[in-house]
Amino acid sequence: MDIPARVTVLERVPLFKGLRPDELEAVAREAHERKLEKGEVLFRQGEDAAHSYVLGWGRLRLDQATPDGQNVVLRFMGPGDMVGTVAVLRRIPFPATPLAIEDCVILAWSAGRTAELMTRFPAIALNAVAVVGGRVEELQARLSEIATQRVERRIASTLLRMARQSGRRIEGGVEIPFAISRNDLAEMTATTLHTVSRTLAAWEQEGIVSGKRGSYLTIAQPHRLVEIAEQA
Amino acid sequence: MDIPARVTVLERVPLFKGLRPDELEAVAREAHERKLEKGEVLFRQGEDAAHSYVLGWGRLRLDQATPDGQNVVLRFMGPGDMVGTVAVLRRIPFPATPLAIEDCVILAWSAGRTAELMTRFPAIALNAVAVVGGRVEELQARLSEIATQRVERRIASTLLRMARQSGRRIEGGVEIPFAISRNDLAEMTATTLHTVSRTLAAWEQEGIVSGKRGSYLTIAQPHRLVEIAEQA
Repeated sequence: MDIPARVTVLERVPLFKGLRPDELEAVAREAHERKLEKGEVLFRQGEDAAHSYVLGWGRLRLDQATPDGQNVVLRFMGPGDMVGTVAVLRRIPFPATPLAIEDCVILAWSAGRTAELMTRFPAIALNAVAVVGGRVEELQARLSEIATQRVERRIASTLLRMARQSGRRIEGGVEIPFAISRNDLAEMTATTLHTVSRTLAAWEQEGIVSGKRGSYLTIAQPHRLVEIAEQA
Repeated sequence: MDIPARVTVLERVPLFKGLRPDELEAVAREAHERKLEKGEVLFRQGEDAAHSYVLGWGRLRLDQATPDGQNVVLRFMGPGDMVGTVAVLRRIPFPATPLAIEDCVILAWSAGRTAELMTRFPAIALNAVAVVGGRVEELQARLSEIATQRVERRIASTLLRMARQSGRRIEGGVEIPFAISRNDLAEMTATTLHTVSRTLAAWEQEGIVSGKRGSYLTIAQPHRLVEIAEQA
């Protein structure tokens, strides 16, 4: 990407909201570019946080290995999401591994450059607090759901959250435009693969969702899913 | 508190790490002071985020009401913790209610002043990203635990986390120096009151914890609790 192309990417990124065009250009000039093919990782959990990243195109799945060696899906990330910035600022090793689930183009800044740019343009740092704060809220909402709701409601809430964040309106409903396995859903809702499969099969039969093999999951009747998510 | 007393509080606060004494003094001068008695709330969930706060002395419990009207304990906060900053920067209503569980002294800055100070001293904003990022990690750890661990391990991990954050070494072990009910623990570990009571009773009988009525919970044998938390 040349500098104007990078600026076009950066001006839609929440982290850089409110920056003037000349400021965005300065940020774009300091970036390195990385391409990832589907199946590659951007970095590995435990590595030194030497760079912070912004995802330009593509999708990542953020995986975390627990001390027991189990895998937990933390979140899915799409264009405009920041990756690794917190670890850079906290000077801790990366706490998770971002795996490309589509081909990706990523902009990268060294750790020193990240802090320097935030100091030169404090709006970036203020935006970063807001972005990371949004993640706190999302995680707290998931914890509240797990603590208080039946499994069926948690699965409904999780699907609606993903549809809100990344959904694409298509004929037949709202499509979640990346591969999400039943196992991913089980990890995200703290339940078993069996329960997720049973719940989704029931919803498919009722026409609430459709998820044929080889295609993405589509929410055919979002209002029914909202009803399930909200029922006490 | 006079200005030097406020500076003494602020220089131990992670949010203000790396600020020079004259910068800390400028921050201290812009603060308002609030006192809360035990049982009072600092603000209520849903109110406009008109101020950000730093807890000088005392303890708060952060409660969130779910859409169904159930209460979830999000976290306990102690001296030096920042409160409400994220909502101020995101311009959203406060997402939870901080309740004083001890008498508190709190420093407050208006929303406009908060953004202005972070712009004048970008180190504050960078620190804020790191602090909020730490919460993301804590919440992700709790979610991983819930998704992958048996209840007993989750309760052990939660107690150890609280001991690490706020524990006080006393004769007979490590005391968690605030009132934490079995119900709070059930909400934080996504289990039932019955399971928490049964687990704690077993641990008391084994001498791992002690929690007589009217006193705080004490971890008598932290190494045993670590073993429980780590057993696969």
